[in-house]
Amino acid sequence: MPTIVVDVMPKSELLDPQGKAVSGALARLGVESFSAVRIGKRFELTVDGEVDETVLDAARRIADEVLSNSVIEDVVGIEVVE
Amino acid sequence: MPTIVVDVMPKSELLDPQGKAVSGALARLGVESFSAVRIGKRFELTVDGEVDETVLDAARRIADEVLSNSVIEDVVGIEVVE
Repeated sequence: MPTIVVDVMPKSELLDPQGKAVSGALARLGVESFSAVRIGKRFELTVDGEVDETVLDAARRIADEVLSNSVIEDVVGIEVVE
Repeated sequence: MPTIVVDVMPKSELLDPQGKAVSGALARLGVESFSAVRIGKRFELTVDGEVDETVLDAARRIADEVLSNSVIEDVVGIEVVE
């Protein structure tokens, strides 16, 4: 069944304390390849039937209105996966 | 700066109460295009310098050992984004 993946990340100008904590843990573990970590959400929406413009519009709408909080988060991607 | 994106999802055989809650909210809002919602995490790792095999190996290792809990989650994707 087709799936629509919606990616939501904290806005870049905001601190991401969860990401900072992981970044600190990596430094303590001796992993030094990464200078920053940010943590967002990945939603997998299972679609009943075909993915047409109506379904994509619904996905875009709920991505903005339900799945993300536009005050602190950005929708960074909406893509269809089979 | 290059970024490595790591996607982590709850294992498919496990219930995802957060996803179920969103799914119920969509039904109450009258959105009927989606039969299921699952919610996972998206990590953006900023890489200092080049992405070579060593960095990718480090990313794979921390994806399995730090960023995900293999008892309840699967790493579903690791990709390099410029």
